[in-house]
Amino acid sequence: MALTVLKGTIVSAPALGRLEVVKGGYLVAEDGVVRGVFSALPERYAGAAVEDFGDALVLQSLADLHLHAPQYPMMAVGMDLPLLDWLNTYAFPTEARYADLDYAREVYRRLARDLVENGTTRVCMFSSLHRQATRILMEELERAGVTGYVGKVNMDRNGAPDLQETTEESMAETLRWLEECRDFRLVKPMVTPRFTPSCTDELMDFLGKLAAERGLPVQSHLSENRAEIAWVAELHPDCGQYWETYAKYGLWNARTLMAHCVWSDERERRAMKDAGVTAVHCADSNQVLCSGVAPVRAMLDEGMKVALGTDVAGGSSLSMFDAAAAAIGASKSRRILDGGETGLLNAAEAWYLATSAGAAFFGAAPGFAPGGALHALVLDDSRLLQPHPLTPEERLERCLYVRQPGAVRAVWSAGRKVFSAELST
Amino acid sequence: MALTVLKGTIVSAPALGRLEVVKGGYLVAEDGVVRGVFSALPERYAGAAVEDFGDALVLQSLADLHLHAPQYPMMAVGMDLPLLDWLNTYAFPTEARYADLDYAREVYRRLARDLVENGTTRVCMFSSLHRQATRILMEELERAGVTGYVGKVNMDRNGAPDLQETTEESMAETLRWLEECRDFRLVKPMVTPRFTPSCTDELMDFLGKLAAERGLPVQSHLSENRAEIAWVAELHPDCGQYWETYAKYGLWNARTLMAHCVWSDERERRAMKDAGVTAVHCADSNQVLCSGVAPVRAMLDEGMKVALGTDVAGGSSLSMFDAAAAAIGASKSRRILDGGETGLLNAAEAWYLATSAGAAFFGAAPGFAPGGALHALVLDDSRLLQPHPLTPEERLERCLYVRQPGAVRAVWSAGRKVFSAELST
Repeated sequence: MALTVLKGTIVSAPALGRLEVVKGGYLVAEDGVVRGVFSALPERYAGAAVEDFGDALVLQSLADLHLHAPQYPMMAVGMDLPLLDWLNTYAFPTEARYADLDYAREVYRRLARDLVENGTTRVCMFSSLHRQATRILMEELERAGVTGYVGKVNMDRNGAPDLQETTEESMAETLRWLEECRDFRLVKPMVTPRFTPSCTDELMDFLGKLAAERGLPVQSHLSENRAEIAWVAELHPDCGQYWETYAKYGLWNARTLMAHCVWSDERERRAMKDAGVTAVHCADSNQVLCSGVAPVRAMLDEGMKVALGTDVAGGSSLSMFDAAAAAIGASKSRRILDGGETGLLNAAEAWYLATSAGAAFFGAAPGFAPGGALHALVLDDSRLLQPHPLTPEERLERCLYVRQPGAVRAVWSAGRKVFSAELST
Repeated sequence: MALTVLKGTIVSAPALGRLEVVKGGYLVAEDGVVRGVFSALPERYAGAAVEDFGDALVLQSLADLHLHAPQYPMMAVGMDLPLLDWLNTYAFPTEARYADLDYAREVYRRLARDLVENGTTRVCMFSSLHRQATRILMEELERAGVTGYVGKVNMDRNGAPDLQETTEESMAETLRWLEECRDFRLVKPMVTPRFTPSCTDELMDFLGKLAAERGLPVQSHLSENRAEIAWVAELHPDCGQYWETYAKYGLWNARTLMAHCVWSDERERRAMKDAGVTAVHCADSNQVLCSGVAPVRAMLDEGMKVALGTDVAGGSSLSMFDAAAAAIGASKSRRILDGGETGLLNAAEAWYLATSAGAAFFGAAPGFAPGGALHALVLDDSRLLQPHPLTPEERLERCLYVRQPGAVRAVWSAGRKVFSAELST
């Protein structure tokens, strides 16, 4: 049996807004499965090799539940355009390049490495419509040790000329891709209609049935901006609200992720809550693209499932630390927008959303719950100045905002050490 | 005569929204004074040693026109509180520590080094009320090669018990501090009433006369949030608007900086424009503290002088790249707040504000204008992926958003090389 014992200031997020801290604690995993956090090493582990990180923070690693892998190379370019213009000018032409498999290999290898170095070990990710490039993305994630779901994107209408499938192609390629996915261990397929305007009713129907038959999770976009909502209403006069265009085809259940939900009103939010759909809040992207400010406080107060995403490359950073800070910032923008009354998201809440809430989509219990696969990172903030001795909670808050090159010292994913600063170049 | 010749992709901001690019260009300085940017090295410099940075960006270095030096150690801690609570809980107790000169030395040495490594070579900075610590701050800035103005803070009312002067002390210490400042070459004194609620009328009157007699510039805070504005109105029933509490005492002219101006309405903005006062936009801090969203687009359209500040530690980052990105973000929040109509700040404009507009406060012409002291940095973005060959403008835009450890390769300030990545530890 392989024992992993990490010693440090162990901080986990067992519930929204609550941090559990054990200073000088031991996080123990057996064969990659967490056994517990202990203030003293239990007798039964006596003699185990301890990786002692001193006073460094030992944290859960992060879960990025929405990003577009092919857009990574264009991150933070062309940020002055509204969503639909930006898609046509930058995103679609870049995505079209992934017919070139060498390019796909180069980008996806780099993306996978950068994710791990940023402490992100769980993802739900859009690929492009290219079957082969999608397989390459999954290979590179698996090789780097990133776990989660990847979707070959389906889009058979309203795309760019070189970035659209026929309905038949989309179906056939999806089936073929699913066949090719069988051998992956850490990275699994996810049904991914790009968004309602990109998919004909026939394709949506096919995807809904496919998800049901094979028990596949689903990801898409919902109510990101007002132009998009108006467009969906035109395309689907039969649906009262945007969400119904997914529900109608069986793409709306407890294994569904919907990115953004910026303009989801009470009725749409209620439909999400009732179905157990998870809203993926992408605060940075929502600001970059002037989409609006998602009512994340209201979502949480209403008991909805909410996780966070970077939305690369609508978002401008691959770091989930940045995504957590952006979520706090968005809650403040929301307060300003609402005239000063709305409650904020605090650092402990944002951290929970970036870690435990994302992990929950994969069935993981929150925090370092015994029985779960070890997903952890070590963060060394010792280079920062201290105004006075900071509490671990204050240190974690600061780490959400302050980028510290080289501060992530080591990362474990699905029980395995996948990054060590000492070993990296 | 000492020649400096930098070769690279030279990008400068000669006017708001305009970037001047010379690929494979030469930036030449004689004895630290810029002589020009050339596409080929002029005959008269033949044989000069050329520092060739290949394709790297050679940019103006940055000007941070508002930050609180003593708050640097508490940056990004306690970000959930509104301004006045945050001041009392975090900022004032931290500032009180600067009676300890060893602590001041340690913090200010680190701050000065971090500024330079982030490419900031011009500052206007608040110290604390401590005369000796303020002198230490100036020493450390000068030693590191940072130029600009520093203010010993004046506050003789409404402070914390251990962070307030009597009126007499404040005046006497200010005069003594000015005597002690005579020997600095790069860092000069600036009159710094903390903000109206912190200074009695008697002190304000003294400071206004002092500024006039000695030709000193002035910095303070204006219309940051609504509670503050209401408080000022109570304290000064004789003044119609907040700005008049400064104007009344001669603290309102073309050498005045006013931080924030979030809630400055048309009348207050007109008063700034008429007097030539510079508004220092601190977008990150305004969001962190839920102060509001400054109408920066309107300010620029109205022809006001606007520069940027990090406002450490209301702001959560010392980097002026972050401050520029935050200004763009704030203009987008402003658009959302205004229902989608307000114009955005684009990357070229934000870069101008972070460089040329800030330098203008020190009398420098925009861009790499001949005759000005060399303030420059070299930014190597070659580690980033490219979706297609990016233009220098696109590369600069990306550098505003993406933090790249080690990307700042070298920095010049006031003609002198003050940082080189090769030489740093």
